Amino acid sequence: MTDPRELRREDFDDLSTATTRWSDNDMLGHLNNAVYLELFDTAINAWMVRETGIDERVAPEQGVVAQSTVRYFSEVSFPGTVDVAVRVARTGRTSVVLEAALFLPGSEDVVAHCEWVQVYIGRESRRPTPIPAAALAVFDRCLATRAPRDATS
Amino acid sequence: MTDPRELRREDFDDLSTATTRWSDNDMLGHLNNAVYLELFDTAINAWMVRETGIDERVAPEQGVVAQSTVRYFSEVSFPGTVDVAVRVARTGRTSVVLEAALFLPGSEDVVAHCEWVQVYIGRESRRPTPIPAAALAVFDRCLATRAPRDATS
Amino acid sequence: MTDPRELRREDFDDLSTATTRWSDNDMLGHLNNAVYLELFDTAINAWMVRETGIDERVAPEQGVVAQSTVRYFSEVSFPGTVDVAVRVARTGRTSVVLEAALFLPGSEDVVAHCEWVQVYIGRESRRPTPIPAAALAVFDRCLATRAPRDATS
Amino acid sequence: MTDPRELRREDFDDLSTATTRWSDNDMLGHLNNAVYLELFDTAINAWMVRETGIDERVAPEQGVVAQSTVRYFSEVSFPGTVDVAVRVARTGRTSVVLEAALFLPGSEDVVAHCEWVQVYIGRESRRPTPIPAAALAVFDRCLATRAPRDATS
Repeated sequence: MTDPRELRREDFDDLSTATTRWSDNDMLGHLNNAVYLELFDTAINAWMVRETGIDERVAPEQGVVAQSTVRYFSEVSFPGTVDVAVRVARTGRTSVVLEAALFLPGSEDVVAHCEWVQVYIGRESRRPTPIPAAALAVFDRCLATRAPRDATS
Repeated sequence: MTDPRELRREDFDDLSTATTRWSDNDMLGHLNNAVYLELFDTAINAWMVRETGIDERVAPEQGVVAQSTVRYFSEVSFPGTVDVAVRVARTGRTSVVLEAALFLPGSEDVVAHCEWVQVYIGRESRRPTPIPAAALAVFDRCLATRAPRDATS
Repeated sequence: MTDPRELRREDFDDLSTATTRWSDNDMLGHLNNAVYLELFDTAINAWMVRETGIDERVAPEQGVVAQSTVRYFSEVSFPGTVDVAVRVARTGRTSVVLEAALFLPGSEDVVAHCEWVQVYIGRESRRPTPIPAAALAVFDRCLATRAPRDATS
Repeated sequence: MTDPRELRREDFDDLSTATTRWSDNDMLGHLNNAVYLELFDTAINAWMVRETGIDERVAPEQGVVAQSTVRYFSEVSFPGTVDVAVRVARTGRTSVVLEAALFLPGSEDVVAHCEWVQVYIGRESRRPTPIPAAALAVFDRCLATRAPRDATS
């Protein structure tokens, strides 16, 4: 994998802004590490719901996170907003790997990076199941858009 | 006290926007009640820090919340943003009562209302102490601005 | 209402212990105020589910919080545990008022107190509806147990 | 690395119990993924503070998390408690790798596993600095205790 710090906003499929909260800061005066994961989780889920149109509370398949890796490069503190970027990294038969990055407003420095492995399971079976068509179409479209750039690297 | 549902954005001293998070929704699909308090806390503290210039981590006095009353009028859910309005209700010698209200974008319906009693204590003594001058100046300015309107009601 | 600081563990209908978390502490080194509400919410809901046997995700009625008032008397910090006590204060036709108090282990000093007004609404109608029989039976049983003591005051 | 699901409580240096909260459950009725990280963070920090005696709010060095990887093997829901185990995996000059695992009471199945890379930085310099002696002594003691067992595997 490329060093995540080389990523820029334009490398991603989605960008949203989140506000921080007073309670996000820990005793050391910066965002608690679990808050980063809340922010990545929020950006990923909001994008997924909007793009795929899938309501996981009723859909026959659910996407559950199997692994999340967060790398913390610099500190962020309340007050202020953060930009959260999301992109599709790759797909498997029953899972997708997403990446997310956190930027401060007006900066292209990656503050933190998340690799997020999501597995689809049957609502009833609780066993892995192929990525639903509506989601796969979104992932494929994102990967196709980025392919030419990746091909040159 | 007036019915808080009669309040409008223009009745407040400050207005900010907050983003909701995936994890804010509880099992019933709407914002958990403690999240409302996080949002009120955030709006009140951000406004106080910005207006008074007091850094409570080092100031000789700290403002601590003595009582918070939240009234929930309707439901809010992730995704989406909320507007949080803050105003000074009244001041005492060592405490201030603030009010905050939560609105949905584009609506003047009060979704939830908070009455927030903040007491100032000495950093070392941990006992009530008069409102710091920098904070009192802000509270008085806010109350003065609103006086004419209140006088007619 | 009696001064909540006069309450003791024996005045309540339920008592449970909760662990605090690193992220509960705010920049001032003590539990953020919204965390108190999370703890009260948790104790109230765990007790309600266990005693009434109602699963609100599927029941025809839902109990939603209409108002929560928290009074903060002293500070609590991670690490450590807290005891959370819950009791029924009074019932109406469509609502119940509960009280909860937070104690430190080995102490009878009330650290914080919560008055919690819960209204029952129809799952579909979203309008107030009478307290479900299974819940009312629990509330009545609790109030009956406490009646003799209250009568002398 | 060994498959984390082969780990048992006895493989760890510390074991603590945490209570879950109503608000930990997300819309799908199980613990939100960021809550797992809060629980790992809590267990790691409580153990570190207790064993090393270092108060990071005033110490010349601070331990900051550089990377956290969580693997989720099965689902956990409020209500109930979880056991969180912590151990030292290996040390470098300026960093330590810890592992944590979440177990359900009475079970040796690993529900979730966390690899936690902590880097020590100077309070003022914000640059990597050698592991403080008090912390290194704890890490070395833990690794020494486990060495014979590892040697036989």
